[in-house]
Order: sequence, then structure tokens, then C-alpha cells
Amino acid sequence: MAGTKFAYVKIFELPDPLLPGTYILVRLDGHGFHRLSQDHDFVKPNDERALQLMDHGARDVMNEFKDIMLAFGESDEYSFLFRKSTALYNRRQAKILTTVVSLFTSSYVFNWPRYFHSLSLKYPPSFDGRIVLYPSAKEVRDYFAWRQADTHINNLYNTTFWALVQQGGQTTTEAHSTLRGTVSKQKHEVLFSRFGINYNDIAERYRKGSVLVREKLTAADASGITERMPVEDDDPEGGAGGTKEVQSEKKNKKPKIHAQVQLYHCDIIEQAFWDARPYLLE
Amino acid sequence: MAGTKFAYVKIFELPDPLLPGTYILVRLDGHGFHRLSQDHDFVKPNDERALQLMDHGARDVMNEFKDIMLAFGESDEYSFLFRKSTALYNRRQAKILTTVVSLFTSSYVFNWPRYFHSLSLKYPPSFDGRIVLYPSAKEVRDYFAWRQADTHINNLYNTTFWALVQQGGQTTTEAHSTLRGTVSKQKHEVLFSRFGINYNDIAERYRKGSVLVREKLTAADASGITERMPVEDDDPEGGAGGTKEVQSEKKNKKPKIHAQVQLYHCDIIEQAFWDARPYLLE
Amino acid sequence: MAGTKFAYVKIFELPDPLLPGTYILVRLDGHGFHRLSQDHDFVKPNDERALQLMDHGARDVMNEFKDIMLAFGESDEYSFLFRKSTALYNRRQAKILTTVVSLFTSSYVFNWPRYFHSLSLKYPPSFDGRIVLYPSAKEVRDYFAWRQADTHINNLYNTTFWALVQQGGQTTTEAHSTLRGTVSKQKHEVLFSRFGINYNDIAERYRKGSVLVREKLTAADASGITERMPVEDDDPEGGAGGTKEVQSEKKNKKPKIHAQVQLYHCDIIEQAFWDARPYLLE
Amino acid sequence: MAGTKFAYVKIFELPDPLLPGTYILVRLDGHGFHRLSQDHDFVKPNDERALQLMDHGARDVMNEFKDIMLAFGESDEYSFLFRKSTALYNRRQAKILTTVVSLFTSSYVFNWPRYFHSLSLKYPPSFDGRIVLYPSAKEVRDYFAWRQADTHINNLYNTTFWALVQQGGQTTTEAHSTLRGTVSKQKHEVLFSRFGINYNDIAERYRKGSVLVREKLTAADASGITERMPVEDDDPEGGAGGTKEVQSEKKNKKPKIHAQVQLYHCDIIEQAFWDARPYLLE
Repeated sequence: MAGTKFAYVKIFELPDPLLPGTYILVRLDGHGFHRLSQDHDFVKPNDERALQLMDHGARDVMNEFKDIMLAFGESDEYSFLFRKSTALYNRRQAKILTTVVSLFTSSYVFNWPRYFHSLSLKYPPSFDGRIVLYPSAKEVRDYFAWRQADTHINNLYNTTFWALVQQGGQTTTEAHSTLRGTVSKQKHEVLFSRFGINYNDIAERYRKGSVLVREKLTAADASGITERMPVEDDDPEGGAGGTKEVQSEKKNKKPKIHAQVQLYHCDIIEQAFWDARPYLLE
Repeated sequence: MAGTKFAYVKIFELPDPLLPGTYILVRLDGHGFHRLSQDHDFVKPNDERALQLMDHGARDVMNEFKDIMLAFGESDEYSFLFRKSTALYNRRQAKILTTVVSLFTSSYVFNWPRYFHSLSLKYPPSFDGRIVLYPSAKEVRDYFAWRQADTHINNLYNTTFWALVQQGGQTTTEAHSTLRGTVSKQKHEVLFSRFGINYNDIAERYRKGSVLVREKLTAADASGITERMPVEDDDPEGGAGGTKEVQSEKKNKKPKIHAQVQLYHCDIIEQAFWDARPYLLE
Repeated sequence: MAGTKFAYVKIFELPDPLLPGTYILVRLDGHGFHRLSQDHDFVKPNDERALQLMDHGARDVMNEFKDIMLAFGESDEYSFLFRKSTALYNRRQAKILTTVVSLFTSSYVFNWPRYFHSLSLKYPPSFDGRIVLYPSAKEVRDYFAWRQADTHINNLYNTTFWALVQQGGQTTTEAHSTLRGTVSKQKHEVLFSRFGINYNDIAERYRKGSVLVREKLTAADASGITERMPVEDDDPEGGAGGTKEVQSEKKNKKPKIHAQVQLYHCDIIEQAFWDARPYLLE
Repeated sequence: MAGTKFAYVKIFELPDPLLPGTYILVRLDGHGFHRLSQDHDFVKPNDERALQLMDHGARDVMNEFKDIMLAFGESDEYSFLFRKSTALYNRRQAKILTTVVSLFTSSYVFNWPRYFHSLSLKYPPSFDGRIVLYPSAKEVRDYFAWRQADTHINNLYNTTFWALVQQGGQTTTEAHSTLRGTVSKQKHEVLFSRFGINYNDIAERYRKGSVLVREKLTAADASGITERMPVEDDDPEGGAGGTKEVQSEKKNKKPKIHAQVQLYHCDIIEQAFWDARPYLLE
């Protein structure tokens, strides 16, 4: 056959299996999103459209890969947790990593108009990603705590910074200078005393980031979920590729246990979130 | 600081540098493109719009990463060759791999309307990718020969198969059966005797695939390039994000050596292509 | 400096850190020990001198690397368990692996005369090794259970095989043939009915393998340990490089908690062994 | 079977193939040899017995692994070059690395009495090792140049240092102080003006290190080799496990091409060594 004498080059493709029995964490980050946010006039300090678009991409990824139990997003980054027993693609590293990053990217571009409407995307944005393995549940919890603590730190800084600029009339250089060396408490005071902003009144989405959970529910639970916990509908136009599972849910009459991806902006550092969902780390 | 006690989780991020002094080859493949091609009525055996869209994505990648010297595409796959001395992202494997795959994906979705016009993309397509390292120029040449031989084998089969179906009235099952066990020569004969098709008259794009080359040209060379070799303009609407370099080229008055990404559908198995461009493998 | 222009070759030395938070298991195996055992007239089915020499090597390794908590040996193989928090050599894979294998090999050759006396070693024996990572305590326990089950299977086969040959007058070919397809129970019966051997009367060393444990003891415990559990003294000549810790122990007058490497030939598949030593897997 | 339910732990053993088509370089180093050299009264600055013992170990390794083409040793380190096409153990990293390091260690301990006679080894010495891959011949040559330049630098320093101590009556602290900041030329002058030592008269073994080459010779060449190049016989007692090949050579009457491991203390930085042996890097 024509290609036979060249096929030996295939032996250079080395195996790259991930260690079994470990939690697979995929984190992706926007590539050059500082420029992207400027070129598309993102609202400062937080652009809700952009954050919802990120959540949409993450939901699409979770709908495609059922072994992702949890995802956490802030700004232009998202982290996905695969169950430690996943056998997806025989745990081949490059295959898992690239498929997740590619699908997320694709969804981001595909769904851009849904959130930005007439504001067209000017060029193709991209994301990079990495895989990190965690051997135990404790480390996984601490990973997500690390990201949510980061969300808090960044958001408090950015909120104060942009208040100084947008309402306080400072230049960005002055605002940086004002905040240099301040601790959290001082930023809270600046916000409150100078701008009348109580930081804790700011939307949880901005303070806590986005938490996408594959909830295990019975039909009975499902009917009551909106009472028990405020679930945000992040899809302003009512359903798309990313929400097929939810839609098919409505037609399901028989009571059975099933899973559903829910979006929260809740605390995941404290014990309560995890105690309520032991299956996330099993 | 709030996040400090959790930051230890960062030590689980292990380094993943690629061996220096080796050619880095990134190959990406469409994920589930059999279904995508059916859902979007791709022309069989080859859809020129889809192939041009792939080329556009590859060109965008090459415009972003100047250390990619050569790319080869066929069907829903593309291979990118980085120069062996590249220090991109300190040769970190996941970073290089994901950025290339993400940007390609993004460009594919972003530029879809340019090629498919009113035929909307129905859902976000994705690609997977891998990195393969090659230690020597010989292996790199054989890699590209392997892919182009594969292009030939697949295209000859598909061309004959779809002739049997579209013009010969066979079912796809019958067509597979007709072709089972045939060698190249027999497929050529089927095409010619039953459908009057001389395989060698079929467009080179389909028979040879797409070859994107970062050409090193002097301005003098550049002016004569269209005479020396047929260069296809794959951009029906005359320029986009992916072709900035070409455009700025036109304004450049000073004679100097510069590089330009050119698209060919030429043979890369034989010596001539490589002899003319020793810098590709240096 | 003279070497400066060549020093760039050092960048090809890539980092190889092992994933933090995982148990590091080093297993080494004799290389060509079938021939070695023949060339040095090892007793069949088990040569106690050879097994004691293996244990001596393992003890030397454990005395050198205090983060090895447990080792298990059978035949010409030994497994070493590092605590999951070990920072030995910054968890560099090649460094840990080669140092363990090299020291074990060195001790084996060095201490050969202590066990084989006038029977000289005819040529240098060698071992190969590998590292396996285990994320959780359960997998570590199952690893050791796997090796001890293997010990049992091999020893039952070999004991019956050599009884057939040495006492039953069969050729080795006939003995293999006699045993083909037999299950454990049948081998027990052959041993008992034909040779009057009750398998369970065979020395535990042969049936259970060797278990080296870094025990955590108080001085009070230490004084009573020989009553509580039969501890074998595997050193016929009373002390060597490998047993410094034990010797210094004897001079130690102050009651304090200390660790000591003890050799057992006990069951490690059941719960009891592990329940008594929770610190092994902490 | 008894072990079946535990055998799943084997899936944690991940594949570790080395990239095909690259030169495999194994370098091993003595572990704690500063202490070893003191405890065994090594002659300063160079102990010929210890160096010959290292060479013996390296020769044993090369006799075992026919794909090692070249080795270079200095002090307590040795580097081994495998041909780039080697398929030894399917190029499994841990297997190659540990077997080489283990056999070298074993030979070192086994052959110690041959070189140190009544001076007994007091405890088992060990070595660590690593594998480095080099994609091209140039890098391999530069690697060996790097090691030989290192030999030169160290030996010049040590020779001068010990002359100051042994003949000049300085303490080691004073000698270090005397040499601080000196360049090569100054050390040459110290040696010559104060101690009448012409550095270039010092044995090549010390200045150049040890070069073990798998020579390709015809029988005709072999008969003349001692004329053409001084070959040192490093085996004072006339033959052992490590020199079987050489001995069988003498009985071989038929003229044929064969390979033989030869020891030199020659320059390997300059072109001549490599030009004479193109097969080393093929």
C-alpha cells in the first residue's frame, strides 16, 4: 500500500496515560483576554454577558462529558473536575485535554451572539489548558477553595479599583497607587466610605464565581430544587445545545434518580457544600 | 492572604517540557466530523467549502505562531510543524498543544459563515490534538509523506465510492462491496471505464491535500511567485484576520527578505518540494 | 571557562518529579536469576541463604532511606513503600529509583560471603527496578496483597514440583505434566498423600515471604517485642553495615519513641497487620 | 486464582518508552563518594586503582549491552552512549536505566578486591543514574566534550590543590585560598614554578579521563592496533567476566569484521576521534 513505507513514523506517538485512581482536573484560561475585553468593550469590573458565555461553554463541556462532576469559573478561566474513576479515552492525557479545551472554545465562539447580540466578535479568541492530577479528596477541595479565594481577592481589588476610576475620577495609575499595600479591610472601607458600596451586596456571581454541579436528584427532589436553593437560569433565550439534558428532563415522567447540571454562585470553601454532595468526590 | 493556605495545591502542576532540539509536530483531528458533515450536508466525496475553512484555520494558526514552518491538511485533520529550535512557551507541551488546537477551533467556528454563507452551523464542533516529536529531518519528511499518501488512498477510495453511488446508482452497501479488496489500479479503471473519470484530472486539492508553507522570499521573488507556482487564493471574500500578514505585505516597499504563508496543493513526497526549501527543516 | 560552550547540553536533562501526595512503590527484580541460581547451586525449591541475603539488602535500603515504611520480598524480588509525603530528592524519579536499586545490588554483592561462605559469587548479579505510584491506601494494601498472593501461588507450585522431582523420582518434564491444570487443593493433596508433607508446616518464610516493617516502638515495647511476635534474626554473624541502627539501639538507655526495622514472615493480606500499624499508610 | 482480585494494581504501572530515533545517554555518579574515598584512603588527587575499577565496571556494562557504542569516565562518574536505533527492552526507560546502574554497581563491588587487594571494602557503595536523550550527533559530541572539559578543569584544580598541600605544606584551607580566582594559566605556573611539575607530563588517564570505544575492526586491523594507538590493559590479573570478549578474540583465527571494546585516554573534543569512527554516531 502506498503509505506503508512511511507508516513507521507512527511509532513516535508515545502513550500518555494519566495515573489511574486520581482526580483529573482540567483548567483552561483565556489567551490574551485583556486585549479581547478591551476590543469588545467589556463592562468593568465584571461583564455579566462574558461570564454567562463562559458558563455556557462550561455547561456544554459538562453535557458532553458525563464524568465531569464539578466545574468552577471566574473571569476568563474555568476548572473541570473528572471523577477519579473515569475511563474517558482510556485516560489519555492529550486527548482529554484537547477535547475539553476545543469544545469549550467552540462553544464560546458559537454562543457569543446569544450574549453579546449585535456586538460582533472581531477575531477568534483562544484558550490554553492544562491537566493537574490530585490523589485525594482533600486536595481537590483545597484546589477549588484556592480558586474561589482567588476570585474573592481579584474581585475585591477590581471592584475597588474601578470604583476609584469610574466614580472617584482617578486615573488607573492613581487607582493602582491608592490600593498599593492595602489589605481587604481597607478596600471594604474605601468602597463603603467613599462610594457607599457594601461589598457584600455585590452580586454573588462576582464575589463567588460560578459553580456548575452535576447534581444527583430524584424526580421529587428535582421538582423542589428551585425552592431549596436559588438556581440561576443563565440562558436568556431559553435553551440551546448546552441544555438538552434539562429539556428532556421535563418530559420524563417516571420517578428515578438522575443527574442534572446546576449553576450556583455559592461558597465552596466551607464544609457545607461538600457535605451535601458526597458523590462529587467518590 | 486569603488564598495562601490553599496555594500548596499548585505543586501538583508538574513541568512538561518537550525535549529540546526535536521537531514538534501538532496534529489535530475533527471530533465526530462524520456526523457534522451529515448534519451540514457536506458535498461528497469532498466539500470544497469545508476544506477551505480548514485551510483558513490553519493559516490563522500559522500567522499566530511564527515558528510553524509548514502545515498539511486533509479532510478534517491538520498537521503543524514547528521548527526544532522553537522556544515557544519554553516548549511546554500542554501550553503549545492547547493553544494551537483552541485557536484552530475558534477560527473554524468564527469563519464558518465566510465559507458556508447562509448554511448555519448547528452546534459547536470540536477537535482533538496530539504532539509528536521527531528527532531528525528524515522522519519529518516521512511524516508528511505518510499523511499525503493517506490523502491519496482515502481520496481515491472516496471518489470511486461516491461515483458508484451518485452516478452508478449503487447503495452505499453495494459500493463498499464493489470496492472490497480492490487495488489502486482497479479503482482507476472503475472510474474511467464506468464513469469516464480520469482520476488525474480531479482537482489537486482533493488528490494532494493542502500544503501551507512559510516561504522565505525576497521582494523580487515575491513579485514573481504566481508565475513560478500556482498559488490558490482560498479566501473568497478577500482578506480577513487570518491574512493580515499578506495584506501588510502589499504596502511594504523596501526590498528585504521576509516570510509569507502560501497555500499549495502540491506533491510533498518527492524530493523537489524540500530541495527548494531547505530552511523548512533547518 | 573551558567547558562553557558545551554546557548547553545540560538543558536536555528534563525534570522528572513524581506526583506529590502519592505512595511511591519501588519494585526490583533479579536479572537473569534463573541462571544465577543454577550457577551457584541454590537449594530448591527455596534457598534460605539467598532469601536472607535479599532481606539483608532490603534492610540496608530501609536503613538508608527512612521514608521507606514497609518492604516485601519473595524469591528474587523486593518491593519498597515510601510514605506518600516523602520529599526524598525532591521526588525525582530517576534519582530515587536508581539509588534504591544500586544500594540493594551493592549490598547483595557485598554481603554474599556472609550467607554463602566459601561458595564464591562467580560473576556480578544485577537487578532491574521500576517505580509505581499509588494514590490511596487501599491500592497500596492491595499491591502488597497481590505480591503475597503471588508468593503463595509460586511456593505451593514449586514445593509440589520439587517434591515430585526430588522425592518422587519424576523428571522435571514429568513433574510439570503432573501439575498441569491442578488447583491448590490438588497440590496440597499430592504433597500430603504422596510425600507426607503438610503444606502448612512449611516455614512461614517460604509461604509468606519477607515483610520488613519500620515499627514505631517505645523502649518499653521494644524490650517485649520478641515475646509478642517471633522476630527472626536474619544475620548469622551478628551485625554489619546494614544493622547499625539495631546495634545503636542496644546502647540506647533512655526510654523514647523510636523506629526500628523488623523482619516478619506474617500475613499482610488480612486486616490485622494493617490495623496494628496505621502509621504505615498515613 | 488467589491473586486475581488484587491484580488490578498492575494497571498503575504506566508505560515509559523513550522517544525512538534519539541517542540514549546513561550517566551514573557515585553516591557519597567523598566519604567513600576517605574511608578507603584513596590516593589524592587521583587513585589509579579506583579509576581502573570504574573502567572495569564500565567495560562489563558494555560487554553486556552491545548497543552501547561509547563510554566516558572520570572520577566517580561514567556516561554510556546507546546507538540511536537501539531497541533494548523496547526502549523502556526504567528498565534500561536500572539495569545499567545495577550491573555497574555490582561489578564495582565484585571487582573491588582485584584492584584494592587487601584493602577491604568497608560498606556497600552505591551510584545514582539518569537518562538523557539527544536528538542529533552534534549534541552527543558536545555532551562528551562537556564531560572531558570538566575532567580537565577538575584535574588541573585538584592536581594543583594537592601539590600545595602534600608538597607545599599548606593546609587544605590555605590551598583553597591560594587557588581562589585563579585561571588555568596561573595553576600551570604554580605547578611548574613551585613544584617543578609540567602539567602536560601528568598521565593522560588523569587529564583526559577514560574513553571506552566499541571499535569495529578487521582481524588485520586488530593485530596492528597496539602499534597504532597505545591501548592500556587495565586488568592487572589477566582476565575476568568483563573481558571474555577480548579473550575469545585471541582464539579467533578467521579474518572477519568484529567489534571490540577498547580503552583509551585520548582527546574526544577534537574532530579526529570522531572522524576515525563514524559508526559511533550512525
